Amino acid sequence: MAFPRLGVIGAGQLARMMVAPATALGVNLRLLATDPHESGAQICDHFIGDPSDVEAVLKFARTCDVVTFEHEQVPQSVIKNLENNGVKVYPRSDTFIYSQNKVEMRKKMDELGLPNPQWQEYDGADVHIAFPLIAKTITGGYDGRGVFVITSQAELEKLHKEIGKSLLLEEKLNFDSEIAIMVARSPHGQAATWAPTWTVQDGGICTSTVTPAPDISDELASAAANIALKIAQGVSLVGVMAVELFRIGDRLIVNELAMRPHNSGHWTIEGAQTSQFEQHIRAVLDLPLGDTSLTSTWAVMGNILGGEKSDMYRPYLHLMARTPALKFHHYRKEVRPGRKIGHVTLLGEDLLELRNDVQHALDYLSGVIDE
Amino acid sequence: MAFPRLGVIGAGQLARMMVAPATALGVNLRLLATDPHESGAQICDHFIGDPSDVEAVLKFARTCDVVTFEHEQVPQSVIKNLENNGVKVYPRSDTFIYSQNKVEMRKKMDELGLPNPQWQEYDGADVHIAFPLIAKTITGGYDGRGVFVITSQAELEKLHKEIGKSLLLEEKLNFDSEIAIMVARSPHGQAATWAPTWTVQDGGICTSTVTPAPDISDELASAAANIALKIAQGVSLVGVMAVELFRIGDRLIVNELAMRPHNSGHWTIEGAQTSQFEQHIRAVLDLPLGDTSLTSTWAVMGNILGGEKSDMYRPYLHLMARTPALKFHHYRKEVRPGRKIGHVTLLGEDLLELRNDVQHALDYLSGVIDE
Repeated sequence: MAFPRLGVIGAGQLARMMVAPATALGVNLRLLATDPHESGAQICDHFIGDPSDVEAVLKFARTCDVVTFEHEQVPQSVIKNLENNGVKVYPRSDTFIYSQNKVEMRKKMDELGLPNPQWQEYDGADVHIAFPLIAKTITGGYDGRGVFVITSQAELEKLHKEIGKSLLLEEKLNFDSEIAIMVARSPHGQAATWAPTWTVQDGGICTSTVTPAPDISDELASAAANIALKIAQGVSLVGVMAVELFRIGDRLIVNELAMRPHNSGHWTIEGAQTSQFEQHIRAVLDLPLGDTSLTSTWAVMGNILGGEKSDMYRPYLHLMARTPALKFHHYRKEVRPGRKIGHVTLLGEDLLELRNDVQHALDYLSGVIDE
Repeated sequence: MAFPRLGVIGAGQLARMMVAPATALGVNLRLLATDPHESGAQICDHFIGDPSDVEAVLKFARTCDVVTFEHEQVPQSVIKNLENNGVKVYPRSDTFIYSQNKVEMRKKMDELGLPNPQWQEYDGADVHIAFPLIAKTITGGYDGRGVFVITSQAELEKLHKEIGKSLLLEEKLNFDSEIAIMVARSPHGQAATWAPTWTVQDGGICTSTVTPAPDISDELASAAANIALKIAQGVSLVGVMAVELFRIGDRLIVNELAMRPHNSGHWTIEGAQTSQFEQHIRAVLDLPLGDTSLTSTWAVMGNILGGEKSDMYRPYLHLMARTPALKFHHYRKEVRPGRKIGHVTLLGEDLLELRNDVQHALDYLSGVIDE
């Protein structure tokens, strides 16, 4: 057994953050990028190709021992073509579908007896859910895109016409908080979860996370882990998956799935013995999974969203001096307003102080605080 | 201020381990390699050139904003040529000399009033130190190479003839343990040390380290930090430096200096809030230094030395399952008996258990334990 060649379809920041653990493990990482300037492609061996091009992806895959994904925008036909050609690709197409198609995901949650909101597929016929409701594009949405609050039948019909495809409708829940839990599973069936994370949202975008989620009991944390493990087994997951949950009192409702390293797991780079990026590599290579325990009492992660400042290096002079324990992760993406261009993580004992320090860093980086 | 281009002269495992923090910080790292298969060059932008070739190094340096080193085998003439051409190179030539020339180092320690062993330069004239003594090549030695135990005048004369150059002679100390302490210093003069490390030696090779060094008092740990800080300031260090010390009771004697990330600081990757590799980058770029505090009670690091096994991937199946918290760092160097080809690190509370688990991993990887 030689050190394997692991191919990743996609070359964004998630692929970029796989480079460090792949290097440490000695695994040869290569990316399928659409552009050599993508975040991951800047620093990693890569091939240029379109992830929806069956032949290009197969050609790429033939230079790898195992292939995985860092985004959902890979058509099922492309994944199935890899499988039909004997490529080891994880997650499998019939697993990955549940992170690509929200109606399939809802059906699967029902089948597994897991808590869904009220939901229906809408193709212009009757609506069984009370307004206001949530309408989602069935495929292709992420980061709050493709999600709409709809207050009336007329508004729904207008959206349906615009989108031109069936929609997923869900009841609009009045939840207390949003929780995410990361889970990993290997082809052997070994599975492990990390502590649940509170994902602090602003306008449908996760702006920061706190781990462990501070507002949930041990029982609820166990319930979240059980949901994640049940899904992982139920869909034959291989790799890591984020399970996003709504908390209403002591009830948890499944919101979304993402079968790849996820923003809600970025805290694991410093905050857990094994990061989601290392674990994803271990899982898809069918290696034993690493220890997921926390390395400190609290881990606070904040997303750096593009703001007024275009220079993202100069702020180091102030922020590193002010908060010597702050960890920076720059994705080296072009700064555009509202775009995730990096994140910071801070570990420690005093949650209030950690959250303040992370917020200060985010405000300073986005230009809300002047230099 | 754009993200800077940092050039590293050398492309071994130390350069390889700079890639992860450079990527996280968004710093553009480029290496001067002698061979594209070198440990660091495999995974990082690099130029091919001879580090002793004045013109090649200058050409490389002109593509960088700041230049640093990962080994000592760069002639002073090459470094001075960079300086004379306005290249920002750290450590400076008149600092780096103390890690390249052991006689200059001894003189400097005397000048700074720091504890040296008895020493003299030997060019064939009188010997003032009792036999058995230690003879060292004045330049070019590392990892126990170029260090000799000499029991008689005849033996010394024979060695002197073989080497064909002056030697450094030092009294052979009957020490209790070997300690190393890492220190970082920036051009601004900010300096920081990490906890002192016990470097466990076997035949002149460091086989494992334990941090914090378990056999020293808080007073002695402070004394070690003070020695490191005094040297850092005294030589105008920029970057990180390992200060290797002999402990005799509650006395510390300076053994060696290395002005770069060092094997005795590998534990900092997981064991400290800021690793030596990140800190070296921060220091040479004149960024504020990071927090050096420990992330756990104990950090045990073990060097993977080449043994009977040539397959270094297959052992993961056993070791990851047995010790899920074990962190692997493979350098992807060709396996040769006794060669450092990687290291493992384990953090935790129970030092005996940590040391046993690390030793098991090393025995298993080198082939002492059969599969």
